[in-house]
Amino acid sequence: MLATTAAAIPFAMAPAWAQGDLLPSWNDSPSKQSILTFVSAVTREGSADFVPVPQRIATFDNDGTLWCEQPMYVQLAFALDRVKALSNQHPEWKDKQPFKAVLENDMAALAQAGEKGLVELVMATHAGMSTADFVEICVDWLKTARHPRFDRPYTELVYQPMLELLAYLRNNGFKTFIVSGGGIEFMRPWTEQVYGVPPEQVVGSSIKTEFKVQNGRAELMRLPAINFINDGAGKPVGINEHIGRQPIAAFGNSDGDFQMLQWATMSGDRRLGLIVHHTDASREYAYDRTSHFGKLDKALDAAKQNNWTVVSMKDDWKRVFKFEQ
Amino acid sequence: MLATTAAAIPFAMAPAWAQGDLLPSWNDSPSKQSILTFVSAVTREGSADFVPVPQRIATFDNDGTLWCEQPMYVQLAFALDRVKALSNQHPEWKDKQPFKAVLENDMAALAQAGEKGLVELVMATHAGMSTADFVEICVDWLKTARHPRFDRPYTELVYQPMLELLAYLRNNGFKTFIVSGGGIEFMRPWTEQVYGVPPEQVVGSSIKTEFKVQNGRAELMRLPAINFINDGAGKPVGINEHIGRQPIAAFGNSDGDFQMLQWATMSGDRRLGLIVHHTDASREYAYDRTSHFGKLDKALDAAKQNNWTVVSMKDDWKRVFKFEQ
Repeated sequence: MLATTAAAIPFAMAPAWAQGDLLPSWNDSPSKQSILTFVSAVTREGSADFVPVPQRIATFDNDGTLWCEQPMYVQLAFALDRVKALSNQHPEWKDKQPFKAVLENDMAALAQAGEKGLVELVMATHAGMSTADFVEICVDWLKTARHPRFDRPYTELVYQPMLELLAYLRNNGFKTFIVSGGGIEFMRPWTEQVYGVPPEQVVGSSIKTEFKVQNGRAELMRLPAINFINDGAGKPVGINEHIGRQPIAAFGNSDGDFQMLQWATMSGDRRLGLIVHHTDASREYAYDRTSHFGKLDKALDAAKQNNWTVVSMKDDWKRVFKFEQ
Repeated sequence: MLATTAAAIPFAMAPAWAQGDLLPSWNDSPSKQSILTFVSAVTREGSADFVPVPQRIATFDNDGTLWCEQPMYVQLAFALDRVKALSNQHPEWKDKQPFKAVLENDMAALAQAGEKGLVELVMATHAGMSTADFVEICVDWLKTARHPRFDRPYTELVYQPMLELLAYLRNNGFKTFIVSGGGIEFMRPWTEQVYGVPPEQVVGSSIKTEFKVQNGRAELMRLPAINFINDGAGKPVGINEHIGRQPIAAFGNSDGDFQMLQWATMSGDRRLGLIVHHTDASREYAYDRTSHFGKLDKALDAAKQNNWTVVSMKDDWKRVFKFEQ
C-alpha cells in the first residue's frame, strides 16, 4: 500500500533527499551537499525557504561550465575553421589581418589583433546568410570538428556531473536556462539534444538580423553588426530581457559569470551560486586567474563572502566527461 | 471499460475534434472551423502536416488581439496618468510639450507631438527606476485605473474567445507566447494571471537596463534609451531572438503584425495566420484602415492571398469580453 502510494507520486514531487543518487558523478563532498541542501530547502512545502515551481529558475553558463572551453572557446574554433573554408572566396585575406594570422595558424598574431580582430572574424564568418543557413553551417561543422586533445566531437566534451545537475534540478521543478557569452544561434541548434535545454531557454550574445521577404520566402538575414554581448554585467540584462524573472540558482566558472551570480544570490533569500573551478589538468584542464579563456579571478575572491559553492573539478567530480565510463 | 480508458487519456492527447466545446464563445463559423481544422492537422500522429510538440509555437499580439486597444493603447493611458502623478515633481512640464498637452488633456496637441513626443513621454515615465520598482508602479496602476467607456479594470477587458483559444492551443501541446509592440516589462507582471502566459514567454519592446550593485543590493536600473521596438518587421526579429523557433501559428489584428504573420505562415508547410478584425462598434469598437491605434490595412489586403483567417468580431464571437456572462 505504502509502496503503491510512493510510486504514484510524480517523480518531480519526490523529496530532494530521496534523489541523491541522481548525482552519481559527484563525490560526497560539501559541494554536493550544498546543492542537495539548497534544493531540499526551496522545494519542501512549509519550508521558510520554499519557492513555488514557476519561480524556480536556474541559469547555467555554457563555456567552461557545461562543456570544455580549452584550449580555446569552441565557437572560436568554429570561426577559425570557417575562415579557412571561406578563404578561396576571399583571396585578399592572405594579406590582411586578422585573417592572415588564422590562415597561417599564427596564434600570437591573432592574439595581438585583440577584441577588435575577433569581432572582425565573427562578422566575416557569422553574418551575411539567413538564420536558417547559419544553423545548417553550425550543425555541419559540429558533425565533423574534433577537439585537438580528446579527439572527439565537441558535443561529447560536456561535463557529466553538470548534465546530472541539470536533470536533477528539472526533476525538482526547476526551469533550466543557458546564459552564455557565446552566440545564441551557435548554441540553439544542439542544446536541446545535448543538455535538454530547448532553444527558447537559451540566452546568448547576438548579432543584428533583418526580416526580408523575397521570392515568396520569408527570411531573417544575419547582419555584420553586434546586437548584444551577453557577458559580465550583460548577463543580468540578458536574463531580465529573456526570462523576466530573477534566477534562484546560477552556475558559472569565470569572471564573465560574476554579475549573474550576484543577480541570482543577492536578494537576501536562500539562493544558490556555484562556480566550477578547473583544477584537474590530468582529466581536463587546470586554470583560473591568468587564463586567456575563462579567467576566474574576481569571482573566485568574491565566492567566500557571498557564500557561493566552489566546485573543485578534481576533488568533487568522480567523472568529468560524458564519454568516460 | 471504454469510458475508463478514455478518462485515462491525458487531456492534452485527446483529439482536437473532441475539444470543439473548448471554444464556446466562438460561433460555428468558417473562422472557428479553420482553427479546429488546423489544430487537428498538425496534432494528429500520422498526418502529413503533423508537428511535434516542441515545435508547436503560437505567437499572439496583445493590444487589440488579446485585450482592448481603444480609445488608446492601455500603456499610453498608463504613461499619461504617470505624467500627471509625477507633475508636481516637474513644475517645468506645465510649459513644455508634450507634457503640457498631457496635463491639459489636449489630445490634439499630443497627437501633433508625434512619435518623438511619445518617446519623450515613455522615457520620462518608464525610466529612472529599478526594474523591481517599475513592476510595482505598473501593478499599482492596473489595480486602480479603469477603462473610460466600460468602467472596469483594463485586465478585465480581455477577449473571452481569445482566452479560450490560448487554452485550447495549450491543451493541444502548443507553447503560447505574447509578441507585442508594447513594453515587455509593462506586460510581464500580469500576463501569467490574466492569460496563463508566464513572463519568460512574453516578447515586447524594451528600454535599456544597467546592472548595479549598491548598498549590498543587486538591481537593474531602467535607462532612458530605447533598446528594441518589437513591432512590424521587428516582430520576427524579436521572435527569433527570444524563442529561436519559427511559430507555426500567429495571431494579430493590425499592420504591426503583418511580418509576424508572414514569418509564421510562409514556410510552405501547413500553418495558421489569424487576424482579429474589429467590426463590432456596439460590443467593442469598429475600426481598421484609418485607425490611429491598431491600423489594419496592408495586412487585411494580404490576408486572402496568404490564406489567413480573418475573424469578424461581430459575426464570429458570441461573447467579446471576459466580464460578459
